[in-house]
Amino acid sequence: MSTLESKYKAVRSMTRSLVATLSAEDQMVQSCPEASPVKWHQAHTTWFFETFVLRPFLADYRPFREELHRLFNSYYISLGEEIPDKKLRASFSRPSLDEVLAFRAHVDQEMERLFAGSIDDEASRRILLGLNHEQQHQELALTDIKHAFFSNPLRPSYGSATLPKEHPQPIPQLKWLNFEGDLTEIGYSLNSEEPLDFCFDNETPRHRVYLEPFQIASREVTCREYLEFMSDDGYMRPELWLSDGWEAIEREGWEAPLYWERDPGDETGWRVFTLKGWHELSELLDTPVCHISFFEAEAFARWRGSRLPTEAEWESVAGKARRHGNLLDTGRLHPAWANDAGVEQLSGDCWEWTASPYTGYPGYKPLPGALGEYNGKFMSSQMILRGGSCVTPADHVRATYRNFFHPATRWQFTGIRLAI
Amino acid sequence: MSTLESKYKAVRSMTRSLVATLSAEDQMVQSCPEASPVKWHQAHTTWFFETFVLRPFLADYRPFREELHRLFNSYYISLGEEIPDKKLRASFSRPSLDEVLAFRAHVDQEMERLFAGSIDDEASRRILLGLNHEQQHQELALTDIKHAFFSNPLRPSYGSATLPKEHPQPIPQLKWLNFEGDLTEIGYSLNSEEPLDFCFDNETPRHRVYLEPFQIASREVTCREYLEFMSDDGYMRPELWLSDGWEAIEREGWEAPLYWERDPGDETGWRVFTLKGWHELSELLDTPVCHISFFEAEAFARWRGSRLPTEAEWESVAGKARRHGNLLDTGRLHPAWANDAGVEQLSGDCWEWTASPYTGYPGYKPLPGALGEYNGKFMSSQMILRGGSCVTPADHVRATYRNFFHPATRWQFTGIRLAI
Amino acid sequence: MSTLESKYKAVRSMTRSLVATLSAEDQMVQSCPEASPVKWHQAHTTWFFETFVLRPFLADYRPFREELHRLFNSYYISLGEEIPDKKLRASFSRPSLDEVLAFRAHVDQEMERLFAGSIDDEASRRILLGLNHEQQHQELALTDIKHAFFSNPLRPSYGSATLPKEHPQPIPQLKWLNFEGDLTEIGYSLNSEEPLDFCFDNETPRHRVYLEPFQIASREVTCREYLEFMSDDGYMRPELWLSDGWEAIEREGWEAPLYWERDPGDETGWRVFTLKGWHELSELLDTPVCHISFFEAEAFARWRGSRLPTEAEWESVAGKARRHGNLLDTGRLHPAWANDAGVEQLSGDCWEWTASPYTGYPGYKPLPGALGEYNGKFMSSQMILRGGSCVTPADHVRATYRNFFHPATRWQFTGIRLAI
Amino acid sequence: MSTLESKYKAVRSMTRSLVATLSAEDQMVQSCPEASPVKWHQAHTTWFFETFVLRPFLADYRPFREELHRLFNSYYISLGEEIPDKKLRASFSRPSLDEVLAFRAHVDQEMERLFAGSIDDEASRRILLGLNHEQQHQELALTDIKHAFFSNPLRPSYGSATLPKEHPQPIPQLKWLNFEGDLTEIGYSLNSEEPLDFCFDNETPRHRVYLEPFQIASREVTCREYLEFMSDDGYMRPELWLSDGWEAIEREGWEAPLYWERDPGDETGWRVFTLKGWHELSELLDTPVCHISFFEAEAFARWRGSRLPTEAEWESVAGKARRHGNLLDTGRLHPAWANDAGVEQLSGDCWEWTASPYTGYPGYKPLPGALGEYNGKFMSSQMILRGGSCVTPADHVRATYRNFFHPATRWQFTGIRLAI
Repeated sequence: MSTLESKYKAVRSMTRSLVATLSAEDQMVQSCPEASPVKWHQAHTTWFFETFVLRPFLADYRPFREELHRLFNSYYISLGEEIPDKKLRASFSRPSLDEVLAFRAHVDQEMERLFAGSIDDEASRRILLGLNHEQQHQELALTDIKHAFFSNPLRPSYGSATLPKEHPQPIPQLKWLNFEGDLTEIGYSLNSEEPLDFCFDNETPRHRVYLEPFQIASREVTCREYLEFMSDDGYMRPELWLSDGWEAIEREGWEAPLYWERDPGDETGWRVFTLKGWHELSELLDTPVCHISFFEAEAFARWRGSRLPTEAEWESVAGKARRHGNLLDTGRLHPAWANDAGVEQLSGDCWEWTASPYTGYPGYKPLPGALGEYNGKFMSSQMILRGGSCVTPADHVRATYRNFFHPATRWQFTGIRLAI
Repeated sequence: MSTLESKYKAVRSMTRSLVATLSAEDQMVQSCPEASPVKWHQAHTTWFFETFVLRPFLADYRPFREELHRLFNSYYISLGEEIPDKKLRASFSRPSLDEVLAFRAHVDQEMERLFAGSIDDEASRRILLGLNHEQQHQELALTDIKHAFFSNPLRPSYGSATLPKEHPQPIPQLKWLNFEGDLTEIGYSLNSEEPLDFCFDNETPRHRVYLEPFQIASREVTCREYLEFMSDDGYMRPELWLSDGWEAIEREGWEAPLYWERDPGDETGWRVFTLKGWHELSELLDTPVCHISFFEAEAFARWRGSRLPTEAEWESVAGKARRHGNLLDTGRLHPAWANDAGVEQLSGDCWEWTASPYTGYPGYKPLPGALGEYNGKFMSSQMILRGGSCVTPADHVRATYRNFFHPATRWQFTGIRLAI
Repeated sequence: MSTLESKYKAVRSMTRSLVATLSAEDQMVQSCPEASPVKWHQAHTTWFFETFVLRPFLADYRPFREELHRLFNSYYISLGEEIPDKKLRASFSRPSLDEVLAFRAHVDQEMERLFAGSIDDEASRRILLGLNHEQQHQELALTDIKHAFFSNPLRPSYGSATLPKEHPQPIPQLKWLNFEGDLTEIGYSLNSEEPLDFCFDNETPRHRVYLEPFQIASREVTCREYLEFMSDDGYMRPELWLSDGWEAIEREGWEAPLYWERDPGDETGWRVFTLKGWHELSELLDTPVCHISFFEAEAFARWRGSRLPTEAEWESVAGKARRHGNLLDTGRLHPAWANDAGVEQLSGDCWEWTASPYTGYPGYKPLPGALGEYNGKFMSSQMILRGGSCVTPADHVRATYRNFFHPATRWQFTGIRLAI
Repeated sequence: MSTLESKYKAVRSMTRSLVATLSAEDQMVQSCPEASPVKWHQAHTTWFFETFVLRPFLADYRPFREELHRLFNSYYISLGEEIPDKKLRASFSRPSLDEVLAFRAHVDQEMERLFAGSIDDEASRRILLGLNHEQQHQELALTDIKHAFFSNPLRPSYGSATLPKEHPQPIPQLKWLNFEGDLTEIGYSLNSEEPLDFCFDNETPRHRVYLEPFQIASREVTCREYLEFMSDDGYMRPELWLSDGWEAIEREGWEAPLYWERDPGDETGWRVFTLKGWHELSELLDTPVCHISFFEAEAFARWRGSRLPTEAEWESVAGKARRHGNLLDTGRLHPAWANDAGVEQLSGDCWEWTASPYTGYPGYKPLPGALGEYNGKFMSSQMILRGGSCVTPADHVRATYRNFFHPATRWQFTGIRLAI
């Protein structure tokens, strides 16, 4: 079996295992506009292989069902005659989950037939893209189901176990690490020799940027530190906030991170909803604060007399090497305590908001056609996040990886690293 | 078995049979704010018996699950600590349909235990009310699933058969029937001798009203007649419309009844979505026009040089006798052709919009407590409809029955009877 | 000078005097969607005479300026090619107030020319209608400027004097007056012999209604009585409210009548904004409560164990006779204390919300053409008010007069009379 | 008279002359949320001097009127007890224009008293800031009144003359000018020796950036070129647009620049509203296209196979030198034809959208306190524009000047310069 085929099987099987405990009803919920039903994630990622791989590259491929082509297209405007309104996803009782699973099985079977033959280079590239695409939706499925369960009045739990309560040692002090500025390079260069080498188009081209000297924090900001900001009236002092951020506070009534609820029974006054049910905040005080917007990260940094790093600073610290941390494969599904070892938590735990708006790198070219509608068309009013989170597949993220969300987004596992 | 117990079993079993073909996923959909998921209808009607009958009247009753008490309360504000936002119903993946069915089974079993003993008069009255309540939700479940399937991009069909295409004879001309005005009586007087006698509180007290002489149409307005209104630019002439109606047209973009879609393949240019799938409008031209708002009914009447009847006129024509027509028990699930026999279609086919806003009759008193939150609190900005529709249970409706909706409502089976 | 011409001059001159103290800037403000700028009121009422009287009935009439024809049309959809969006009125810096006053002068001059000749009957009827129309806008101009000044951060005062503080005597107890029900008549019959006899089309035809026996309160509800309702958590108990009313409370945050503001300096905790500036609520406790919605009136009545009268009950009490009370001519511009003399305050002080939705009387026919767009097209989702207020011109209102507003309206001088 | 005092007098007098032809009513209009009434601009700029200069630096200064302090604060959240809702500005009939002019006169008189003495350095800096602030509002006043007059149904004209119709020569072809990339510097360094030297805080610090080689267009894009984009279905092809831009098109119904209206009488099918009234588009074809959003600029560039320049590229081309072009002092008040001389139209005509989101430069520090609320707090979701427009005061703008607006903004004089 080729390494590509192995990877295909591993990724597809991971999707199956992540949703194994969710009922057909659970997989229909869309609890906020940013989210999609889990059933949709399963179908849409499968649609990708049918549309971009099997149809063009497998002779005599017979599509599973013509209507699904139109239904599970998301933002690929170039392809579709019409785009089903994202808000209508909630009416997707049909196709049923059973039919979607049959669609997945059909595509897997046909992909096996494709792998059995010799595979075109362009087909390989698209399969690799499709697998990275599916990994993105694995992460989204977990963040979406967390929100769905939080919105459900019964507040069910995704995972059966609870989070481990004890951590081995006091967590390290936040230290400032010095970096000399200079002309440096960021971005990814694909190695055409290595068949599984991959990056998204928005990580290219690798290019030079000039950095002034800077300092970066040795770990992510903890709930304990964030609680101090809250106690210091952080959410009530307009001078700490960007104008749009203050508006968001007034519109949304934010007074704590998403998933925190008042709990007079806990010494901190709060409890926290996780993928493994409710936990007292007092148990999680030294874990990274999570599910905050860019506005909150930015205001916290101002309050602390510091700032958020730019993405170039962040990447120059993280280097090009793949790093490991508390990613999806740890099975924890929640940010964990830092250990004392250099710059911690760059990989995993929380996506870290940077000070950089999402734009194209100099010379950036999107992929041609519908495949290029992935990244480039979102380059306005979004902010870059770096590093992956506790629900990012471990072999999906890298130092050059650019995630992006609107600055008011909170349903992702998003946290803070400071710089000065 | 008492007649009450028989009725209980009949009504509960009817609910089961109406939803038998719907999957758990189908039963979760809420496709417009007026609608509720079918699963919710099943749970909420069961909650009624638990809350108002079993808890107070069955010794040592053990509630099925405490949380469901809060969840399936709808508008009974007096009872609940908090009301789950109607819009959140779409996140009700939990409790699962299986659990809701277990809830129904539990309550049915306990009701059997209650029926086995001697039943308090107040309990009897509440059971009867609960059964009429469940019948209302049977009708709503059908109108809601029609909308849900229409909203689904695959446009599935609720019923397997299609509508019968042929009708035995040309339908009768619309005739004007004369009624002398005078002091007359409307409203219901309960016969306390008859154990199953029932009406809603808003049908009482029976009272006198003075009517001027009037004429009423012998049948409902047909699609063919409505098409003439459309061809005469009915939707484009503001002078035909109430001010709020014209606003609704501009806001909603109405240009035909709900469920009509343009179809160049049909001679009329339209096709119609029914509970039994799509039909060419040309097959349905002589059936009553359906799924129109009060505003459309009122504008049509003005265009025809006539008007809508008041509810007192309507009731004085219909008399107090129970009448039969094309109600739920015919299984047609769509309005049918009129026959030539006096005043037709007063019962069944379409709910008929009247010219009367919904208010309390002179001396009206709601039931005490939460049971009184049914009808009285909706007495503003709604219009009275009379007669039942093709999805109203046959033993549910009567001549004095007062249905009510906001004037822009279209998802119910609503049509037009004219008066002058 | 004919009586019609005298009336014309009196009404037009009253408009001038009511707005005499308002600057061009004041006359441009539109502070809520229900309101219009005072400059617009001045222009629109003049437009009426140009459009419906001078153009058709004065030979060789030269319109003042063609564009104004389109601009000052309000809801007369039949006439206009396009309707200027009501919300755009705030951009009406042009035409300037000077130009509007020139328009008024031009029309007055031409009307003089018309009066100099012999006047067609239809022209007379339209002039009379135009004068009643202008009187309606006089009242609206005062309610609108009250809202405009309340919305302005400097909170200027319309009148220079303050309200008289003392009242001669303790106000009378609220008494219940008995009325026998029976077949009775309501509505207006025009006396074609009397040239100045007038009513609006919606007051006709006079017709019979059957009334059950009822009791009506001897005076309007006072601020003191309303304060008891507030102290008894009236705004916090959903069981007291219609469903739409409770929604309005939650949406709007109502906790007191419009124009009441918290004032810790007053013993009642409130102060009240009037057309003559701020007053402590403690000075006004025995005056009628004012600027409340139908929902508040209805909830108050329920809390008191009573109800609002129907319009037929109200009119059968008020009789057909013109009555006098605290209307615009007293110059008070705020509701006054009741005196002890039969049914008080039926005329003036506050418009009284009735339990009757606004519909056409049996046999109602609107005036033909654009003149008929006045009343009939608003017959949905509005409630009838009766009796006039302290800003209604004294010779404008009568017992059969039907005012109507949406049930959430508060910017008019609206209050409560109870019935049982 | 000091140069600072001269500048003070010149700027204040320019404001007077720009609004000289506007009536009190014109100065009250606020026709879109981004705009403010001209009266407000006059008051707010005066408030600046009272608040930041006279109160702290002029002994025994007596404020003109205490309430105005609160009223004319805009976004200076740190100062105010409460911020009058921006939307309420439309109810500002009071203070009257007369009172605002008296306020201006009072402050000018007191400033004269201040200038008569010796002036503190901090006071000087603030006066300079206040003058630059007032110049910004001069530009805003013109863009706001343009929108106000366009919104008014009579469509009045601000200027009495019309635009000159003829231009001396064919305009130059669009050429691509090459620039070598390299480490370069952008941003402003204040010369503390020069008393009138000024920049805004967001232009600092001057810092290094690395640029790849690039090409930039020799002039702005013309209406003729933009019309080709429109003819090629530019507004109908989603693949040309950013996702947010496509949403804006669908929401707003854009199909041409703001101020273009269909005109079948002109050969191009369009006419254009300017500060000097309507002009046929055919007269303006070779002038820069204006009043387009960032989304339109970006889509046009993609359609042309090019892109927008970054702000660093733009500034490296423009250099640090002050340049002259078609700015406010030409009196044209509309973009003009390019001439053939190097890189044209960098200064004046239209603000040029860049590809750079608005963020702080490395090491950026806002001014302390309320004066710092100017720029820094808007650093999210806005795009940088460079170069000034035909309504920017000539001595206000410079090569380092950073203007910023949300990407959907169109009411400013905004156009396109291309890069590759």
